Amino acid sequence: MNIKVKWLKNQLANLKLDGMIITNPVNIMYLTGISEEGTLIITKRENIFITDGRYIESVNSKLTIEDEIVVYNSKELDKYDYENIFTMDDNVGFEENYVTYENYKKYLHTYRVNLIETEGMLENQRVIKEEEELECIKKACEITDKSFEYIIKNIEEGMTEKEIAFEIQKFMIKNGADGLAFDLIVASGENSSKPHAVPTDRAVRSGDIIQFDIGCKYKGFCSDLSRVVFMGRIEPEYKEIYDFVLNEQKRIINEFKDGANIRTVIKNIEEEYKAKNFSVAHAFGHGVGLEIHELPRLQAKTDNILKENSVIAIEPGVYIPGRFGIRIEDTFKINKMSCESLTKCTKNYVII
Amino acid sequence: MNIKVKWLKNQLANLKLDGMIITNPVNIMYLTGISEEGTLIITKRENIFITDGRYIESVNSKLTIEDEIVVYNSKELDKYDYENIFTMDDNVGFEENYVTYENYKKYLHTYRVNLIETEGMLENQRVIKEEEELECIKKACEITDKSFEYIIKNIEEGMTEKEIAFEIQKFMIKNGADGLAFDLIVASGENSSKPHAVPTDRAVRSGDIIQFDIGCKYKGFCSDLSRVVFMGRIEPEYKEIYDFVLNEQKRIINEFKDGANIRTVIKNIEEEYKAKNFSVAHAFGHGVGLEIHELPRLQAKTDNILKENSVIAIEPGVYIPGRFGIRIEDTFKINKMSCESLTKCTKNYVII
Repeated sequence: MNIKVKWLKNQLANLKLDGMIITNPVNIMYLTGISEEGTLIITKRENIFITDGRYIESVNSKLTIEDEIVVYNSKELDKYDYENIFTMDDNVGFEENYVTYENYKKYLHTYRVNLIETEGMLENQRVIKEEEELECIKKACEITDKSFEYIIKNIEEGMTEKEIAFEIQKFMIKNGADGLAFDLIVASGENSSKPHAVPTDRAVRSGDIIQFDIGCKYKGFCSDLSRVVFMGRIEPEYKEIYDFVLNEQKRIINEFKDGANIRTVIKNIEEEYKAKNFSVAHAFGHGVGLEIHELPRLQAKTDNILKENSVIAIEPGVYIPGRFGIRIEDTFKINKMSCESLTKCTKNYVII
Repeated sequence: MNIKVKWLKNQLANLKLDGMIITNPVNIMYLTGISEEGTLIITKRENIFITDGRYIESVNSKLTIEDEIVVYNSKELDKYDYENIFTMDDNVGFEENYVTYENYKKYLHTYRVNLIETEGMLENQRVIKEEEELECIKKACEITDKSFEYIIKNIEEGMTEKEIAFEIQKFMIKNGADGLAFDLIVASGENSSKPHAVPTDRAVRSGDIIQFDIGCKYKGFCSDLSRVVFMGRIEPEYKEIYDFVLNEQKRIINEFKDGANIRTVIKNIEEEYKAKNFSVAHAFGHGVGLEIHELPRLQAKTDNILKENSVIAIEPGVYIPGRFGIRIEDTFKINKMSCESLTKCTKNYVII
């Protein structure tokens, strides 16, 4: 049996649960490598993946006998088959943060068990990355770095944000990415003031800030990188904000390592923002893995201790509505004594 | 007040509900045009949109006084503000098909009301398109048609599936699309046998089938088009399947109009598939609108009456595992007496 499913079975035993129903595709991918639609069911006796005719062939081609996962076609299962997966009165875990209220009720009816909340058990486990997961994230970061280096050599005045975003995407895919980690952001001039800007037909011109927020996927794992470049020249005001943001990122990096309390660090950063009258509406970062936003949360609300081998994006930014914004972001791995940048492209002023 | 919110308030009154909490972003977009993150709350007294600091500015810029929607910053609301939105003992609708079990419990705690399931009320209403929604879908279909016509003139032997998919995407965006309706499918040779193929580095070559499944968004509304083209020549076997699929699509089109029962039509088509020993694992179509897959479902399981001004994609296909597949798909508007194709590009054999 693969080590992650084995881990899960141990967890369930500790929690006195008789099994678990897993439907969040990201968690299924995490546990089994299966990316096809379906439901993963862990019982005391066996591990089952229920899918349909479209996917049987490709799921079976991915699994080996050592996975100990039996694949079923949902069309071949009837009411009684479902009722017999578990024993009546079994306590079965489910993903209360993924399953809709409607499906919760359907599960009760289908499986005839007691459904027990698992409190984000799988999402919490995903925080700590295995060696091979880290390798995928590193590769995604490497492709992202290269795509940034490529684009800053190829931007010309008059290109639109959309065109620039395309060139980045094309470069990423050509260089081995499975796809994008999210819709790429290329925001120029006043558009940069919106943290979630969508590329427009605005052409870049001299004097512009261009904000990039880009990332790709490699074997399912994400990268996240934000950089700002300047067209032709840097206004002194831009420089000032750039230095502030870069400095805040450095301050976070210096504090982050295994055992650090995210709350304390972020609280201090928020104080400095407030002293300058900058908004703290936008988060300072997030975990990165199979999802572009996953645990841990980088917020000052609750205590949250960083753990070795977790991966996070740290992205302080300053946004001045209607004028401009500057965000600097890298993807980091948390080490025993440090916070190691997996994205490595330059943070010097880039003027093109 | 906008007519959709007015409609919803009437519905809630008919159902003896005192309000509704709406969190599905597609439903919020449908009702209000707001695409920013947040929660829309309808009470007897007022309509509220709760968002955060990142979005206040852009939401307010979209709304007019006639919308009668009050925008709040969630950071400025405390526990008691939330409890006072409704009156205790109010019966409040929620989206049980969207809200997770975890959030269901949070809502109970936050709003202190009785939460009542609304049985997909909003999704069912979205089936019937307004005139201006139809205009957006038509425009999305027009861009998609053009992108197909463009790509068949520009494919050359040796281009990879990924490269071809890029060119289509680029053309769509250049020609006014907001973005893609879904990850485009370009699947050549044996890859075409997978209905959900992802573009690969396989280069197209003489004798290949190339399966396209492409669509874009215009002002949030989707289009969906599938075509097959042949590189260099058509194998007789391909021709036979192509004709069968095209004929099945025609048979569906001939039956579909206001008042037709989807179940009956699809059942007949499934019989013909079974007579030829073709799999019916893949659905024959789906509703299209703000989402690429929405109601109605095109399946033979339950009675389902087609309604005027709904929009559906009809996509029969035949998939021969490990060898090839052929799917033909168009986006249609259901009229009183007909099924009108909104995508219009050729369905003759295309050899390139």
